[in-house]
Amino acid sequence: MLLVLGGVGTAVFASNLFVDGGSTGTVYAAVALAFGLTVVVGAYAFGPISGGHFNPAVTLGLAAAGRFPWRDALGYIVAQVVGGIVATTLLVLVGLFGPEGWLTTAQEGGFASNGWGELSPGGFGIMAAIIIEVVLTGIFLLVILGVTHPTRGTPLAGLAIGLTLALIHYISIPVDNTSVNPARSIAAAIYGGGDALAQLWVFIVFPIVGGMLAGFAYKALFDGAK
Amino acid sequence: MLLVLGGVGTAVFASNLFVDGGSTGTVYAAVALAFGLTVVVGAYAFGPISGGHFNPAVTLGLAAAGRFPWRDALGYIVAQVVGGIVATTLLVLVGLFGPEGWLTTAQEGGFASNGWGELSPGGFGIMAAIIIEVVLTGIFLLVILGVTHPTRGTPLAGLAIGLTLALIHYISIPVDNTSVNPARSIAAAIYGGGDALAQLWVFIVFPIVGGMLAGFAYKALFDGAK
Amino acid sequence: MLLVLGGVGTAVFASNLFVDGGSTGTVYAAVALAFGLTVVVGAYAFGPISGGHFNPAVTLGLAAAGRFPWRDALGYIVAQVVGGIVATTLLVLVGLFGPEGWLTTAQEGGFASNGWGELSPGGFGIMAAIIIEVVLTGIFLLVILGVTHPTRGTPLAGLAIGLTLALIHYISIPVDNTSVNPARSIAAAIYGGGDALAQLWVFIVFPIVGGMLAGFAYKALFDGAK
Amino acid sequence: MLLVLGGVGTAVFASNLFVDGGSTGTVYAAVALAFGLTVVVGAYAFGPISGGHFNPAVTLGLAAAGRFPWRDALGYIVAQVVGGIVATTLLVLVGLFGPEGWLTTAQEGGFASNGWGELSPGGFGIMAAIIIEVVLTGIFLLVILGVTHPTRGTPLAGLAIGLTLALIHYISIPVDNTSVNPARSIAAAIYGGGDALAQLWVFIVFPIVGGMLAGFAYKALFDGAK
Repeated sequence: MLLVLGGVGTAVFASNLFVDGGSTGTVYAAVALAFGLTVVVGAYAFGPISGGHFNPAVTLGLAAAGRFPWRDALGYIVAQVVGGIVATTLLVLVGLFGPEGWLTTAQEGGFASNGWGELSPGGFGIMAAIIIEVVLTGIFLLVILGVTHPTRGTPLAGLAIGLTLALIHYISIPVDNTSVNPARSIAAAIYGGGDALAQLWVFIVFPIVGGMLAGFAYKALFDGAK
Repeated sequence: MLLVLGGVGTAVFASNLFVDGGSTGTVYAAVALAFGLTVVVGAYAFGPISGGHFNPAVTLGLAAAGRFPWRDALGYIVAQVVGGIVATTLLVLVGLFGPEGWLTTAQEGGFASNGWGELSPGGFGIMAAIIIEVVLTGIFLLVILGVTHPTRGTPLAGLAIGLTLALIHYISIPVDNTSVNPARSIAAAIYGGGDALAQLWVFIVFPIVGGMLAGFAYKALFDGAK
Repeated sequence: MLLVLGGVGTAVFASNLFVDGGSTGTVYAAVALAFGLTVVVGAYAFGPISGGHFNPAVTLGLAAAGRFPWRDALGYIVAQVVGGIVATTLLVLVGLFGPEGWLTTAQEGGFASNGWGELSPGGFGIMAAIIIEVVLTGIFLLVILGVTHPTRGTPLAGLAIGLTLALIHYISIPVDNTSVNPARSIAAAIYGGGDALAQLWVFIVFPIVGGMLAGFAYKALFDGAK
Repeated sequence: MLLVLGGVGTAVFASNLFVDGGSTGTVYAAVALAFGLTVVVGAYAFGPISGGHFNPAVTLGLAAAGRFPWRDALGYIVAQVVGGIVATTLLVLVGLFGPEGWLTTAQEGGFASNGWGELSPGGFGIMAAIIIEVVLTGIFLLVILGVTHPTRGTPLAGLAIGLTLALIHYISIPVDNTSVNPARSIAAAIYGGGDALAQLWVFIVFPIVGGMLAGFAYKALFDGAK
């Protein structure tokens, strides 16, 4: 099961990260859309098998909301992180056969890592990154919890989740290159150089904080009375 | 209930307004799409709880069409306006940690406020803004009333409504930065400076006029015989 | 009934044509998408009432395929053309309150009229316009007939039709500004000047030829044996 | 039946290839989206009749997964290739009536053929093209097999498949102009000149390798126990 999950995660992250890699120099709207599409597709294709978790912050947020067993979370998260790293490695492999200097340029550009201060696309500080990761991961979880609700949910859940993720990228790429997903941040940072690695903790801690806050809040507000 | 609505509204408006703020310098097609996506997502995620009203003109238009109780309208509208203001304030907070001058520039640019004459992106006059707000909010309500009709409606209603809003932005951003939503106009104008505030009444009155005209017309034409 | 249709048609065409008018200077991909969205929205909102016909070539193609009574076609087409003209007139009205010279520039640019030779955005000749209108209107009708088939159809029909129309615009805006809809061509041409009017016949005749050929072919090939 | 398939394939490929032809000079995001849309539309419109196969790698991958009879594959593939060539020929015909030099320029540009080395848009080598075609066609098949699964599938399958194809184009246009479809590669290469033809084998062999590997793997992993 974990093996399968790892494979599936690899496929999904591969798409994500190829997009990252390929996007140097293209408009960021396309990137935002592409991230969203990846999740739409991942959710519909692999959702029935693995539950469609590709993101530790989502897995922990769902656990906080009582929709996912805490004891399964660790295994899922390990598979998500491994899948992400396999995918980045695959991208580096393709880059080895790219035009001369392509890989070096991509890595000097941080390999689409998340960051603040010097590493923020728009020059935003660490507090801006923290606020935006907590708020946006929180909204993301509220949407996921709403559309996948056992009784009030919608068959279009996968589409709505993907569109939300696209929207989140529109908003926060200028601020910190958009994490809301620690596995995505880890996979990018390990090829993104020392500065990216040094800032990585922010994009592990705060998406999880935002996701879990939203999970507990949703449970208390909407499911509490039941 | 109002508290919940306020929270939900905040989340939705936050997305809207972050997009506004982030869009300085990006193509307006992306902005239009983002506004539409916000509503798609909001409708699917929060629709079953709050009925998905994020817009006073829609709430009043639905009341005019007999689809929503008049006596609940005021509470909804207060929550929508409060939610909008909380969201803009959150954006200002992020901006405080942005690159030097970012917030000042955003505010001098009107903070994505609606406007005509000097404040119209394309230099259109007040009459153009009035016609376009009445006509487009009217079309918006006709679409909403059509796709959410109890017997003739569609499960894709949320998607259709969001795409309509995207379309409306494509059309009228050049004219007056697109309102069709008084709560959105108020939330932007309070940080947009004195000129934006002075023009605000147009974007409160005429979206509501358009929405209510459409509501009454729809009821008379299509539901009248029943 | 015709009156209602006229009103509905006006709303839909208004959206279309505002987009046309507003698109001077924006990327054509946005325009293509917007045309498609209009139809998605129109189909879901007004489909249950009027059958969602906004296009004489579609109405005649459906009649050719035996899906629509020939005797109702004339009334529908008159309403479609009238709706289109009301919408363009509304746009001219907004333009009167636009920045100085805006309306003149829009009209000198042909008001988004269809055309070939001098009036083709990409400089294509009349034969290219004829081939492309016949082929694309034919494909459009095949898609419409497929997705709205009584037994083999799909609830996503409106979305599929709208995406097809977006695709058609991607393809043929460079060739002849994309008609596949005589009512749209007439509404644009009456404000587009003498040259646009002189070429109008091509965009009335060949979309209808393509649509009817596809209608007869679909009936013969797929429904013939029944 | 094959004749019908040929006609249908022509329509679909025509759209694809007109897009290719028209896209010289437009943003590649639009192209990626357009390819995806073509498949969405094709799947919903023609899916119930032909099963929606427009791609030899998909047909063979489905056969490998036990979802399609091996003995029908050859006929389908012949129809797909013939349909593709008819479509490119139609495009050349339109180009004959285009502005002077348009067709020559399009052909010197390789007519949107796939390629590596000199013919790669981003200057990537043959190994990059091979890896990317195997991996992306594999992911494409996993998605198709997941969303069309008899018991775990979704009515939004056509949409998910189309979005995946759009995503694949986002990722790999810079690498090799994106094949994942031998019929598309053949149809473009026959008008793309000797260099394109000389590299064509890569875009026949490796999409099929990726598609069949995914088909066998999916069957072994997910359907094996049954």
